[in-house]
Amino acid sequence: MTLDRLFRPRSIAILGASEDFVKISGRPLKFLLDKGYAGKIFPVNPKYEWVAGLRCYPSVGDIAEPVDLAIVAVPAAAVPDAVTQCAAKGIPAAVVFSSGFGEMGEEGRELERRVAELARRSGLRLCGPNTLGFMNTFDRVMATFSQAGEGETAAGPIAFVTQSGAFGTAIFALARARGLSFGYFVNSGNEADLEFADLLDFVVADPKVRVVSGYIEGLKDGRKLLAVADRALELGKPMVIAKVGRSAAGARAALSHTGSLAGSDRVYTGVFRQKGIVRAAHEEELLDLVSTFSLCPLPEGRGLGIVTQSGGAGVLMADRAEELGLSVPGLAEDTKAALRKVIPAFGSVKNPVDITAQFIADPALLRTSLEIVLQDPQVDAAIFYLGLMERFADQVVGNLKEVHAKTRKPLIVAWVGAPEVGLKALRESGICALPSATRAVNAVRGLVEYAEARHRWAQERPGIEGGGGGGAEMLRSLVRGCRAEDRRVLTTGESFALLSRYGIRIARSRLSRTPAEALQAAEEIGFPVALKVESPAIQHKTEAGALRLNVSGSDAVARAFDEVVGSARRYAPGAEIHGVLVQEMVREGTEVVVGLHLDPQFGPVVMVGLGGILVEVLGDVAFRAAPLSRGDADQMLRDLKGSRILEGVRGRSAADVQSVIEVLLAVSRLAVDAAGAVAELDINPLLVLPAGQGALAVDALAILAEPQAS
Amino acid sequence: MTLDRLFRPRSIAILGASEDFVKISGRPLKFLLDKGYAGKIFPVNPKYEWVAGLRCYPSVGDIAEPVDLAIVAVPAAAVPDAVTQCAAKGIPAAVVFSSGFGEMGEEGRELERRVAELARRSGLRLCGPNTLGFMNTFDRVMATFSQAGEGETAAGPIAFVTQSGAFGTAIFALARARGLSFGYFVNSGNEADLEFADLLDFVVADPKVRVVSGYIEGLKDGRKLLAVADRALELGKPMVIAKVGRSAAGARAALSHTGSLAGSDRVYTGVFRQKGIVRAAHEEELLDLVSTFSLCPLPEGRGLGIVTQSGGAGVLMADRAEELGLSVPGLAEDTKAALRKVIPAFGSVKNPVDITAQFIADPALLRTSLEIVLQDPQVDAAIFYLGLMERFADQVVGNLKEVHAKTRKPLIVAWVGAPEVGLKALRESGICALPSATRAVNAVRGLVEYAEARHRWAQERPGIEGGGGGGAEMLRSLVRGCRAEDRRVLTTGESFALLSRYGIRIARSRLSRTPAEALQAAEEIGFPVALKVESPAIQHKTEAGALRLNVSGSDAVARAFDEVVGSARRYAPGAEIHGVLVQEMVREGTEVVVGLHLDPQFGPVVMVGLGGILVEVLGDVAFRAAPLSRGDADQMLRDLKGSRILEGVRGRSAADVQSVIEVLLAVSRLAVDAAGAVAELDINPLLVLPAGQGALAVDALAILAEPQAS
Repeated sequence: MTLDRLFRPRSIAILGASEDFVKISGRPLKFLLDKGYAGKIFPVNPKYEWVAGLRCYPSVGDIAEPVDLAIVAVPAAAVPDAVTQCAAKGIPAAVVFSSGFGEMGEEGRELERRVAELARRSGLRLCGPNTLGFMNTFDRVMATFSQAGEGETAAGPIAFVTQSGAFGTAIFALARARGLSFGYFVNSGNEADLEFADLLDFVVADPKVRVVSGYIEGLKDGRKLLAVADRALELGKPMVIAKVGRSAAGARAALSHTGSLAGSDRVYTGVFRQKGIVRAAHEEELLDLVSTFSLCPLPEGRGLGIVTQSGGAGVLMADRAEELGLSVPGLAEDTKAALRKVIPAFGSVKNPVDITAQFIADPALLRTSLEIVLQDPQVDAAIFYLGLMERFADQVVGNLKEVHAKTRKPLIVAWVGAPEVGLKALRESGICALPSATRAVNAVRGLVEYAEARHRWAQERPGIEGGGGGGAEMLRSLVRGCRAEDRRVLTTGESFALLSRYGIRIARSRLSRTPAEALQAAEEIGFPVALKVESPAIQHKTEAGALRLNVSGSDAVARAFDEVVGSARRYAPGAEIHGVLVQEMVREGTEVVVGLHLDPQFGPVVMVGLGGILVEVLGDVAFRAAPLSRGDADQMLRDLKGSRILEGVRGRSAADVQSVIEVLLAVSRLAVDAAGAVAELDINPLLVLPAGQGALAVDALAILAEPQAS
Repeated sequence: MTLDRLFRPRSIAILGASEDFVKISGRPLKFLLDKGYAGKIFPVNPKYEWVAGLRCYPSVGDIAEPVDLAIVAVPAAAVPDAVTQCAAKGIPAAVVFSSGFGEMGEEGRELERRVAELARRSGLRLCGPNTLGFMNTFDRVMATFSQAGEGETAAGPIAFVTQSGAFGTAIFALARARGLSFGYFVNSGNEADLEFADLLDFVVADPKVRVVSGYIEGLKDGRKLLAVADRALELGKPMVIAKVGRSAAGARAALSHTGSLAGSDRVYTGVFRQKGIVRAAHEEELLDLVSTFSLCPLPEGRGLGIVTQSGGAGVLMADRAEELGLSVPGLAEDTKAALRKVIPAFGSVKNPVDITAQFIADPALLRTSLEIVLQDPQVDAAIFYLGLMERFADQVVGNLKEVHAKTRKPLIVAWVGAPEVGLKALRESGICALPSATRAVNAVRGLVEYAEARHRWAQERPGIEGGGGGGAEMLRSLVRGCRAEDRRVLTTGESFALLSRYGIRIARSRLSRTPAEALQAAEEIGFPVALKVESPAIQHKTEAGALRLNVSGSDAVARAFDEVVGSARRYAPGAEIHGVLVQEMVREGTEVVVGLHLDPQFGPVVMVGLGGILVEVLGDVAFRAAPLSRGDADQMLRDLKGSRILEGVRGRSAADVQSVIEVLLAVSRLAVDAAGAVAELDINPLLVLPAGQGALAVDALAILAEPQAS
């Protein structure tokens, strides 16, 4: 395994090695020596015979022994040569520190392509260029010039892979200041060869790693990350990632609604939730979550028990918990009775429980009350809040240790203004402590989110078997037909037929070519009907004035036919008009939008939103990567801000949520069969009838992908 | 001024004084002596003759000299006596530490009422009971037993008033650790006499105080806080408050929509924004904001310039800025050209500007680039981001000092993993530094929010003159009429007449008593029309099935008349039915809800929301305290999440936003005239026509307040 040679080399050559330990080319050697790397080190530099007491070689070719890893610290222009020599020597992996590549304009990009090509041809795997490198502290492999290598670098069960070198180093320093130990610190640099997800994939697999974290600005291939996330779910290793860069990269012109809503950030949010990747808003939250995951077991539900010595902090935490969708359950009568026996009358035995400052005088109070709360069946996780207590830190910690030893539920200590000695003692006892009430609640939310993702994952894997029932064949034939006609947009009729093949119900419709045909269709369908022009040039019929709703009676149908055709002709002169679609009016039902979009990073993603204002003004939609599991489909509906609408508001009855889930799964099967051939799909609206009555696609727009230049 | 005696006493008596400095009753004496309080101190305790070298008195009555402040540290049961004695001695102010009052059940509440009554009768102003007391560090008045009194208590321009003692003390400690100095630290305790806002009012007025902060769980009288906020705006002192307790206290049964949406938190959010009170989500944000306000000038706009040494941090900050409604402007061509001359090619001259780690080798780069960005006319505030730099802290700080000395725009340094020596040097130079990129952006948002509130306030004060035009008289007569009939709900006709008197346009309507009258009304108004039953027992006509829309033709009108009366009878058997309202159908228009609600904390508050789903499912409404200024009305519309709807979406033209503002101001005038007589008012819907065409009230519900028992 090549990445094993990269991360766990038995020997390292340093190209451009220098004795000046302040220089980029000198620092890795210093770190390797200081930290006691056990393998062989071969400095390579024609200028020196000896570097820091080690024999220095004129070139890698002059090293007689095998080399696993090359650290390349030479000027950009010399990198292709260095890589060629490494490959010739049979070195399987390299870290290229050198800058002056893709980040430096067209010339640099060209040089980077050359280096990537050289690596690819020779099979050498390359991290960088323009990277700070990495550390594997388990094996004291310091293939880095980052400031992170200075000072303490104890090994620990946390891995961190970052696309940003400078910010990543700052995060590393913050982690160290908190007593968190990283087993891996990896900067992916320009990713000419090895990408973020490749590097992450290796560290996830290391049995010594228990929590995986990352910092992303943008991915070359999002599907790789999803595969790593699946592996992490399987191994039960939480993954916490900070993703920046929210401005919509996908803001290119899209024909469908789904396409235009697929701003990259919405898709990231959706697929992260789907794959149990906990997203951190910023570096502080990243470390809070990493710390929490590395110390706490997973909660079995959303119930948060709060025990405080300050009523105010209790209210603050209860508020925040509610805001984040956690529950702050009322405690069982038994629990309250037990608390009443120990807590002073001016405290509170209701959740949040206020034990008051009394616990200073009576240290057992902390222990007893927290134990009682943790035993409540509705409590799945607990936070203990306290402030200051410089003089009583020992007592506090002693009591917390006893509680911690007895419980299997996650316990977080929110200690505001904590004395350093107290924090250190908690850390050494493996108890999770955060310096703020709000942040403790945020961390519990992270635990719950991940626990729920694990649970969903354990229950059901997404169905990747495709549609069956001839859907794939119909797709292939539609693609062939469209290519022959050099068009990408399916007609409404074609789209309806396709969806129908995947088991989606369509509102009864007939294409008519004359007013007389329209009337006949309307009579068969039953009044009132809707009339919509059918033309490949007109994707948005409302905009073109080319639809009429609620049409009743024969005169009205004939008039409507002429009107919609007239509007269409004015809107798109010369456009081909296939006819007018006559459709049943569905009277009741909640408008939903379901779509499919070929995301440049994550491939086919499925979207759902609540129709009308919520989608168009608030962008209230949820995405997931196809294929979906039933649990994914269910959760994406719950993620909508307006999801309550489906339960029935304004005097309406509850909508048939199950039928929306079926439609989402059908679209997911279609996406699997399409294998990239469908670029965009809107079912808009899907009218969802009252519970038990199903859902009907009323309009649909499908756009095929550009034929691949192959 | 009595509060002056409380906060700046020339002499202090300590009732229950003890020589045991660990005890609550001993600590203030220790603090006063340690910190060098310059006034006279009189320990009072019959058990001692001397305490800590001071003459101790058997009772306050035995002190020959005048006493300004009594610190009461005796058991709860002895407090009434102590207060009586203080009053008899002519002491104008007291701080009562003792617990065992309102927090301890009914008996305690009764005792607290007695103490409050004693204080009121004698004119003695009382802080507490159950308070940690306060510190005025300017004058070294340590009337507290809080841990906050231990250690350094340097005087500074920040005041902090807190309802929570324990949490407040923790916040004080965090502030001290950051080098923030509080001139006042005040805990309001049970507020038997002096309330949070009374105490805040005093510290706002102190010329040595520049920034005011607070922590609130709930207010007895919100109007007092608004008056203090007005004063703070006038004095140009920013006020930052953390308010916890979001669960709707106002969740009591309300007849109107407005009333049921007035969960106390929405009202708090609205009035805080109105009065320029910057709301902090938690203690960390509170201190970030306090620190920023105490060091930075106010920005003139929302343009944020970002200069970093890490591309990643730049993206993170730009994302966050956009999320918070700040702008990250493209820089002027001149600015970019100037930056291009100094920044390396692999950096970025676009905002966020990335100067790269190059500035370590070239320290002038930091200074030059930051100066160039600050000079850009679109940049109103700047953040400089850096990480670590232990070894270069001096250089960094030196350069920042030069930039800071030359600019009048706010500059915040976001320094992640900063060395303590660097932070200290910045602090001493008066430069604002925060330890996180995200928090720096949040702080700029606080500056902008306050600057905008100041600006609105400086431009126009709310109109408190009431309606004129006989509105007040009509209100009085309606109130008289309703009282006589023992009803609280106005008829639709009465509500319409009242609104009309305040200049609000009403959809054309006629009350009919028979189908024939209805037809006549419809013919005068013009078809189609709406028919709605008019009955004091039916407030929500849709729910009762007692309205018909889009009725055309004489038969249809007669049928609709019978139907709505029939539905009403079934819905509310035996209810009085005044007739059927025949109303014009307004065809176009955006649905808006405008309301008035008598808030238990803030008195009359005006609400606006966008009709339908947004209000009902997402609760997307904004509140402000009456009276409103035009700027308030404008801003509350902008605060709506769906405000873009008014600009026209889904092919609709822009709505007449000005007319909504006029309606809000009219409701504000009505609230002033009503002086508490109107408990709830809904205009729902107000149909807003396209720009220039006004807005029409289509339905209205007004409910009078219960007559005051007087």
